[in-house]
This record gives sequence, C-alpha cells and structure tokens, in this order.
Amino acid sequence: MGNNFSHTYWMSKCIELAKKTVGADPDPVSAQYNEVPIAALVIKENKLLSSAVNKTETNLDPTAHAEIIVIREASKVLSNWRLNGCTLYTTLEPCAMCCGAIINSRISTVVFGAYDSVSGACGSAFHLINELNKNNQIEVIGGIMELEASRLIKSFFSTKR
Amino acid sequence: MGNNFSHTYWMSKCIELAKKTVGADPDPVSAQYNEVPIAALVIKENKLLSSAVNKTETNLDPTAHAEIIVIREASKVLSNWRLNGCTLYTTLEPCAMCCGAIINSRISTVVFGAYDSVSGACGSAFHLINELNKNNQIEVIGGIMELEASRLIKSFFSTKR
Repeated sequence: MGNNFSHTYWMSKCIELAKKTVGADPDPVSAQYNEVPIAALVIKENKLLSSAVNKTETNLDPTAHAEIIVIREASKVLSNWRLNGCTLYTTLEPCAMCCGAIINSRISTVVFGAYDSVSGACGSAFHLINELNKNNQIEVIGGIMELEASRLIKSFFSTKR
Repeated sequence: MGNNFSHTYWMSKCIELAKKTVGADPDPVSAQYNEVPIAALVIKENKLLSSAVNKTETNLDPTAHAEIIVIREASKVLSNWRLNGCTLYTTLEPCAMCCGAIINSRISTVVFGAYDSVSGACGSAFHLINELNKNNQIEVIGGIMELEASRLIKSFFSTKR
C-alpha cells in the first residue's frame, strides 16, 4: 500500500495542485470564487489515475469536494466503481460526505495532509471512518506533509479575512 | 417544513419513480445493470426542483446515489449550492456519504421511507446525522410509507437471488 517515500512524493504533487485551486490564486479575477484550496489524487500501483481540486463554488455543487471528483474520475478511468487497491491522497482530512464516498468506493488507503478539527471525519471532529470501517478494509494515514498542507489552508483563510 | 399530507404525497411520487430505476424493471435487457431501486426528490415551497434514481452501476460511479444526484441537480436549478429551505425525499434511509452531502448542502428537512439497518446513517446503522447536526438545523423524518418503500427494495433483492 505504498511507503513513506511514495506518500511524501504524491502528497507533494497534491499540495502543488491545491495551490492551483481557483481562488488560491492571488489573481483577483479568479479569486472571486473563494474556493478553499484543497486537492486530491487517486493512485493505483504507483500510477496517477485522476486528480482534482475543490470546485464547490465554481460548479455551484455542494458535493464537488476534491475527493468526490477524484473518485468519480478514477472510476471512469477504470470503468469500474470499485476502487479496491487504490490510494486516495488529499491535502485535508476528509469530511463525513467524503469518508462515506471513500467507503462506498472500496478505496484501500487514504493519506491526508492537514487535520481538520471542524469537519474532519477521520478522527479530528468525527470518528466516522473507524465506525464505517468495520472490516478494517481501509488504511488511514494522516499528517503526511502536515505543515505545508495546513499552511496552505491557513494562508487562504487569513487572506480572505 | 411540510406536513404529513405533503410528506405522503411526495413520498408516493418518489416510490413511483424508484419503480422506474434501471434494474427494477423486469425487462432482462435493462435488468443487467442490477441497480438497487432507490429514488430521491428535492422540493422547495411544495414545488419539485429535481428528481433522480440510483445510477451507481449505470454510470460506473460509486457516488451516484439518488440523493447525491438530486442534490447536484437542485443546486443547478437554484444556481446555488446552499439548499436552505429545501426538503429531500428518499425511499431509503440515506447512507453516510449522502448524510454528509445533506449536511454540506444545508438542506432543511430529510424525509425517508424504509429504514436501512446495514448502511442507514440516520440512526439505523450509524447515528451520523445526529452527530453532524450539532445546531439542529436539520429535521429528519423516517418511516413515511415505510411498508411500500421497503417492499420495493426487498422484492428487488429477492428477484436477484
């Protein structure tokens, strides 16, 4: 299911992508969307299947979190909604909706960067993933490149204030 | 937030729609998809905004539950991802992913038909909606036309066996 080297490698790609989220860009035209800069990747056998950024505001879609988009795209690539053997990387601890989608999709490993004490459902705000993960089919690894990942979110919110 | 008359009215529409789910149809061509017959509606001020059936298999998308599709469609109709004041009807108690999406979308009322002891996150299998619903902003009503709604699911699974 990967090792610390590959986790850091893919998380650094994920953080790079998050910096390109619409609204993370200091350009005032794109900044109008106020999109919280979060990105996600799905990897299988150390190859990238799909990547996405948060598009809630851009798409006017409350389900358009990076994790949901990236799961939908990976399913398309594999022509299969069952993503067993895949790893999902995300810069921020997934919320309840995204943890539910991760379980429904049968993803094998979740790796996240920053912890989210408000909405994180991998233990920070809610213990949802443990509750849903009755057969221990999912491995969850938090805090990979935590400093860089949390700095990105914090600097976004401090700019918006 | 509606009353029992309107809840029964919209739930009966929802059950009618669920019967048209691909795979609920006894036609062997469409039955190949094996789509569990579940439907959902979003209503605002007693008017239908959107309707959808479960399309997980058809769309090869683990997030394509009726509730997720109907929330996305309602947001498009209103050009707003915040669905305050809307009521979501669904024939089956929503799973964790869908409860998370309901919270994220700010839907005001959830009305469901059958209880789901395996995946239902409104109290049957998980108490997610209560946990997430810290400010009591969501009203949840279960068991409206429960017999008809559960009969539909049970007859689907007994046919597939």
